[in-house]
Amino acid sequence: MYFIGIDLGGTSIKAGVVTPECAILAKSQRPTGACRNYSEIIRDMAETAIEAVQKAGIGMAEIKSIGIGSPGTVDKSKGMISYANNINMRNVAVCKEMRKYIKKPVFIENDANCAALGESEAGAAKGVKDSVVITLGTGIGSGVIIGGEIYSGFNGAGAELGHMVIVSGGVECTCGRKGCWESYASGTALIRETIKAAINNPESLINKLTSQNMSHINAKTAFDAAKMGDKTAKKIVDDFIMYLGEGITNIINAFQPEIVVLGGGISNEGEYLLSPLREFIDEHRYTKKETPSAIIKKSELGNDAGIIGAALLKN
Amino acid sequence: MYFIGIDLGGTSIKAGVVTPECAILAKSQRPTGACRNYSEIIRDMAETAIEAVQKAGIGMAEIKSIGIGSPGTVDKSKGMISYANNINMRNVAVCKEMRKYIKKPVFIENDANCAALGESEAGAAKGVKDSVVITLGTGIGSGVIIGGEIYSGFNGAGAELGHMVIVSGGVECTCGRKGCWESYASGTALIRETIKAAINNPESLINKLTSQNMSHINAKTAFDAAKMGDKTAKKIVDDFIMYLGEGITNIINAFQPEIVVLGGGISNEGEYLLSPLREFIDEHRYTKKETPSAIIKKSELGNDAGIIGAALLKN
Repeated sequence: MYFIGIDLGGTSIKAGVVTPECAILAKSQRPTGACRNYSEIIRDMAETAIEAVQKAGIGMAEIKSIGIGSPGTVDKSKGMISYANNINMRNVAVCKEMRKYIKKPVFIENDANCAALGESEAGAAKGVKDSVVITLGTGIGSGVIIGGEIYSGFNGAGAELGHMVIVSGGVECTCGRKGCWESYASGTALIRETIKAAINNPESLINKLTSQNMSHINAKTAFDAAKMGDKTAKKIVDDFIMYLGEGITNIINAFQPEIVVLGGGISNEGEYLLSPLREFIDEHRYTKKETPSAIIKKSELGNDAGIIGAALLKN
Repeated sequence: MYFIGIDLGGTSIKAGVVTPECAILAKSQRPTGACRNYSEIIRDMAETAIEAVQKAGIGMAEIKSIGIGSPGTVDKSKGMISYANNINMRNVAVCKEMRKYIKKPVFIENDANCAALGESEAGAAKGVKDSVVITLGTGIGSGVIIGGEIYSGFNGAGAELGHMVIVSGGVECTCGRKGCWESYASGTALIRETIKAAINNPESLINKLTSQNMSHINAKTAFDAAKMGDKTAKKIVDDFIMYLGEGITNIINAFQPEIVVLGGGISNEGEYLLSPLREFIDEHRYTKKETPSAIIKKSELGNDAGIIGAALLKN
């Protein structure tokens, strides 16, 4: 038997056929068209899934269940998307709608939680019971695994670690609070600080690397310039790692997971990011140096974590 | 059968005989004498427990097990206190030592975790699976209950929510970080701010209430003066509630517990504290207004939470 995992995003719908060993047999993808009516999006989700099954060269009879990873808040027990900001869905019975097209059990879960489950079952946190997966992207996605299972609290809305205030009264966040971790340690925050520094420091390599064009600045720019010795960029990177470390230290003091997995584009900076980050955390965590603490690792499944985690969903 | 719960504190050792229904039959207490050798403290713990059993008018044969709630970091599986700052214990095999005096199974757990278990089984969080107990005292104690059990991570050192930075780079904390929640929302923080305001505002009622004597200022002073209409005190209380709210909102966004219980002396301010606190949290939590969110309640067991929770400890 195989499992279908669907990663529903603001930009694209990705579906994969996943083996019981968590390998992806085949994938398919199409644009979400997020502004469309929800029924069209769900029909496209079903078609993308059917396409993946065909690509895998198997029959639908060999599929046991379908899992959907969705942004926003999800009501697992009702199989609904309660609220998804960037896909314009509110209280939509997604699982029921999906079964109109594919007559299989359909499960749904928050996308960051799916990614965490994927890494826990088949990726960087394989073999440990308690882990946290942090995805650094436009925002900060996060999923918490406790005892091998997704933990999201009594209402399924927990593990929103990006919306933990670390600078009370600080930069305004999309959630309405001021000073959320996401406003200091996401890709968006890094780009904001890089643009600010480029303006204030015309001599910085940042400006050369982007041909003086601010719109070319991305979450990699400051890291690239810092590695080439640019002091302005080094300061941006240092501050970014400090804020990233503040949040992860908070998470460790609260959850004491065995492994913290970092995903998203920024995690590709590898040891240049991870090494000083580990140092910061080791210096600031509540437990003394002699107490074992979380291992900080890069994601192993990358963009596939969401598909694999969704495929693993069950009752 | 009955259970003994011991609450080991920096100031006193408290022991109670607890029924299976979580009622306390009898209690006994003596000073900790924290600077003494650990073996003397443990002998006194045993004697206090024996005293409580005698007061209860039962025999030791009717005791099933002993639980100890200890400050600091505990190694449950080894029955050891790994590190307790204010009792000068490091890697002490407390459970084994206790069994020299009382031949019963002995269990140990962090004291804040015991208080959380007590409230969960028999207090303000009775009947729900996921809860968080916050004790506002000298510091901020915290315990997390998930699925009816104490959650403390892979190394047993988790749920240290007081050491979550909410003001990066802010007030220095005893743990070495800057800007921990504990440095803004504990009794100590409240007293610090009250003293500061009393000095800067000689006309404030705070000074009258304490006969101009700073050493009379306690965690109740600002609340008392604020209730009498003093503007300076009102500002202290407002700021305190804001910082308390920032931390609890972070906890809700992370854990989404069904109930958050507030304990410690400051929680006796009741609705004067809780009502604006709930308003702040409702405005700032990540989930939308229509999503159910944690109920914020005052502790029901008060100082007995630790004894009852310790008595509930088992393998």
